[in-house]
Amino acid sequence: MGDSLVTAPSREERILGIIETARGKRAKFRDERITMAHGAGGKATGSLIEGLLAPAFGMSELADAALVDDVALTTDSFVVKPLRFPGGSIGELAVNGTVNDLAVSAAQPLALLLTFVIEEGIATEILEAELRAIAEAARRTGVEIVGGDTKVVEHGKADGLYVTTAGIGRADPRARLSPRSVRPGDQVLLSGPIGDHGITILLARGEIDLEADLRSDTRSVYPFVEAVLDVAASGLRWMRDPTRGGVATALNELARDSGLGIVLHEEAIPVREAVRGACELLGLDPLHIANEGQFLAVVAPEGADAALQALRSVPGCEEAAEIGEVRTEPPAMVLVETSFGGRRVMDQLVGDPLPRIC
Amino acid sequence: MGDSLVTAPSREERILGIIETARGKRAKFRDERITMAHGAGGKATGSLIEGLLAPAFGMSELADAALVDDVALTTDSFVVKPLRFPGGSIGELAVNGTVNDLAVSAAQPLALLLTFVIEEGIATEILEAELRAIAEAARRTGVEIVGGDTKVVEHGKADGLYVTTAGIGRADPRARLSPRSVRPGDQVLLSGPIGDHGITILLARGEIDLEADLRSDTRSVYPFVEAVLDVAASGLRWMRDPTRGGVATALNELARDSGLGIVLHEEAIPVREAVRGACELLGLDPLHIANEGQFLAVVAPEGADAALQALRSVPGCEEAAEIGEVRTEPPAMVLVETSFGGRRVMDQLVGDPLPRIC
Repeated sequence: MGDSLVTAPSREERILGIIETARGKRAKFRDERITMAHGAGGKATGSLIEGLLAPAFGMSELADAALVDDVALTTDSFVVKPLRFPGGSIGELAVNGTVNDLAVSAAQPLALLLTFVIEEGIATEILEAELRAIAEAARRTGVEIVGGDTKVVEHGKADGLYVTTAGIGRADPRARLSPRSVRPGDQVLLSGPIGDHGITILLARGEIDLEADLRSDTRSVYPFVEAVLDVAASGLRWMRDPTRGGVATALNELARDSGLGIVLHEEAIPVREAVRGACELLGLDPLHIANEGQFLAVVAPEGADAALQALRSVPGCEEAAEIGEVRTEPPAMVLVETSFGGRRVMDQLVGDPLPRIC
Repeated sequence: MGDSLVTAPSREERILGIIETARGKRAKFRDERITMAHGAGGKATGSLIEGLLAPAFGMSELADAALVDDVALTTDSFVVKPLRFPGGSIGELAVNGTVNDLAVSAAQPLALLLTFVIEEGIATEILEAELRAIAEAARRTGVEIVGGDTKVVEHGKADGLYVTTAGIGRADPRARLSPRSVRPGDQVLLSGPIGDHGITILLARGEIDLEADLRSDTRSVYPFVEAVLDVAASGLRWMRDPTRGGVATALNELARDSGLGIVLHEEAIPVREAVRGACELLGLDPLHIANEGQFLAVVAPEGADAALQALRSVPGCEEAAEIGEVRTEPPAMVLVETSFGGRRVMDQLVGDPLPRIC
């Protein structure tokens, strides 16, 4: 997965190479065709967005959410396969995913618009089930569905249903979030166990001979974000929901954008046994697996404990944990410290182990 | 196309039936499967949106744009086939289409976010060409691209590229638009010739043995809307960009929502010869054909002339015309008066003559 042990002296050269590549460099796009890896949320997606999309639009990066005055806007497409899976469905994901993009921008989610690209021939009841899932998720989340649109494409030109959600929220005036405001000594908080969504989807496809009692974690993280804002808004530096590419990819982007090092304590990272087992069998790292109901927060040291206690007091967030800290060294990299005292570089996701996860 | 002569006495019964159906009734959804007609923008799309989507979300209809304070939000997906066509491409359409949804809501377009569903294997240069088209259209229109996202699906699960655009604009405080503010005596203005986009796409597919010197009309209509707002904001009642389903479908929705009759003067409606000829050959009505660079405005009689003069003074809008007026009778219907004094009911689009037009 692109990880490498930095404690082994014989690998110093290689590691220096990695540091050189990682340090503030933007990915270039050199592929002649688009592959599934470009959709996996890791390195290839980064090169597509930073090497192709952002330069085309005259930007250094493509933000998840944009601000006009105090109104935050975000949009995301959902192409998850299968449409329904233990713990959720594409419709629920489309609501929660967009709500979470707003939440981690410290914006209170207010309203959603949805567009559907529907494959000709799909049974009306499948569409109806997703409309109900959307309505219920919106109700639970307290956002209003205010509009939308549909397109239909010929049989074989989509895979049942693709959903795109645009969301608006109101930016919380208490928060000032930016990778550039992150400082050495800041603490990294995580809202709960990682990898549930990605592994659930993988197993739901039935392509792997493995069973586990696991459900997607799809939910709104806004109540948790709100709890942190209430007690530690002034110390809150950065938030992100680690979806495609997982915690490792989100934190690698933070490390690169802040120029700082992030050290994770492996034993502090909550991972369910079923996820850990599936990852071991499949050669995956839970830190690379997508989540749909968790978020990461970097908090100044003086606010971190209060933020963690506040998080844990919200039902559904009891397993929140302080999983690491920001350091000066190594610049622009993420390291994982194991319980045995070893350290390894945790790169972002490379390749495409989990296509169409959201 | 569902039209019928109301001047012929022998058809009175049938016409009464149509009036009964049209008057304020919302479409129900009774189909077991989704068909291409549900994506064509006419009657079947209406039944999908009003009979399935809107009720699921507890609404009577799904708006094109929503307001939060004075910030307008809109979103739309684009699945046009082919990706490039005379006069434009999917990327340009994705910018202009969303800009136009904002414009006809009397909102100044400010910023866009784009998401791409990309088919695995598509050549990078195809994607790059669309990114350039998007950037150029945004520059011409004066909107900023502020964010976006990408998803990749397997080969055969999309058709090259689908684009969804979310846009924000600032609502113009001078305008108060609603179908319910439309009054008998109001004039119907149209910004220019109709049907160019739909017929261009139809011919670009090469499935019909017909050639014509025709280009899509894709463009931002905001400069034209602005011109009307500058001279006649207080008299401006309603605007719409007649895309899928054409002028007839847009005006039928207005007739239904206002409960009033709309009478169009056929000879006043600008239609290029190439469009008229293609429509005659194919048995289509130009009033049902999609436009991507025109808009309809209903203006109070005292402001209509000023609005029309203002429109015509903007380069590209010289062919703007007053094409009809609002009357008390027949309620909730659109009639077309021919130059020979005949009248026919102009229903919304039925069936699917033009799939994937935008």
